[in-house]
Amino acid sequence: MALGKDYAGQHCGLARALEVIGERWTMLVIRDAFYGVRRFNDFAVQLDAPKAVLTDRLRRLCDAGVLEKRLYRESPPRYEYVLTPRGERLWPALHSLVQWGQEFSEEPVTRVFTHTACGGRLDGNAFCPECGLTPPAGDVATRPGPGPQRDDPVSRALAAPHRLLEPLVVE
Amino acid sequence: MALGKDYAGQHCGLARALEVIGERWTMLVIRDAFYGVRRFNDFAVQLDAPKAVLTDRLRRLCDAGVLEKRLYRESPPRYEYVLTPRGERLWPALHSLVQWGQEFSEEPVTRVFTHTACGGRLDGNAFCPECGLTPPAGDVATRPGPGPQRDDPVSRALAAPHRLLEPLVVE
Repeated sequence: MALGKDYAGQHCGLARALEVIGERWTMLVIRDAFYGVRRFNDFAVQLDAPKAVLTDRLRRLCDAGVLEKRLYRESPPRYEYVLTPRGERLWPALHSLVQWGQEFSEEPVTRVFTHTACGGRLDGNAFCPECGLTPPAGDVATRPGPGPQRDDPVSRALAAPHRLLEPLVVE
Repeated sequence: MALGKDYAGQHCGLARALEVIGERWTMLVIRDAFYGVRRFNDFAVQLDAPKAVLTDRLRRLCDAGVLEKRLYRESPPRYEYVLTPRGERLWPALHSLVQWGQEFSEEPVTRVFTHTACGGRLDGNAFCPECGLTPPAGDVATRPGPGPQRDDPVSRALAAPHRLLEPLVVE
């Protein structure tokens, strides 16, 4: 059954959000952008989405103001995709979904999130119990948990603790 | 392009979450379950999804342990769909998405969420700044905001303040 992408009859913030981030693969692209992935080929090695789908999702996220496409090399022209302030505000929703998925998964935890200021582990609401606040994504670090990890260049770059939003150096 | 429903190569809580709640319409069904909608026909009048899609989504959510299907009348047999404890734990993610969608929408806010204990309005992280805690969904009330509201029996039942998870009486 073919289903559209909008929810025109729904007057609700959730419907507006899902119109932007509700398509298949889109939240995984946003997750990788939080991890510091910026270049098309790096998104492609970490995700198993067909490249045409990845191209479409990046374009839609730019159109919606969640990602910004920036020229980082003039000749030949090369672009990177960086979260906008609007995109960065998706952190609480993204973190909540990651935690919910981990809580009910049979796999051990694959990603741990900590507050950079104190090293405290965030709770299921992205709240730092040590400091009594919810740090923005730029004050959060991620490191692998005991669960299974992928073996690709992006996953290897994420084997060391990494501050969210900082560009990831992929070998 | 036909895309599957799982993300088998992604070792990540987000992928596990999206396998359960990532399909089109699914989060809107869960939203309505938080609002106290329990019966098929009430989900159907509030959502514009085709009934076959709604049937599929309810079945999948039951299979995943997010909703429980309960017999509420023996003859003829009638069922209702109620969030399980696992489903109720989706509240922070759902609330974050609603808030993000409202924050960047051109429509005025359509739904306001308050902590029942103090009447304080929740922030974008579902946190009650008055009390310094994140109340569970059962301690949250919703009422219409100034934005546009639908005119259907479920939306009319939600015109009065309503505690989340409490069964909604639909005329």
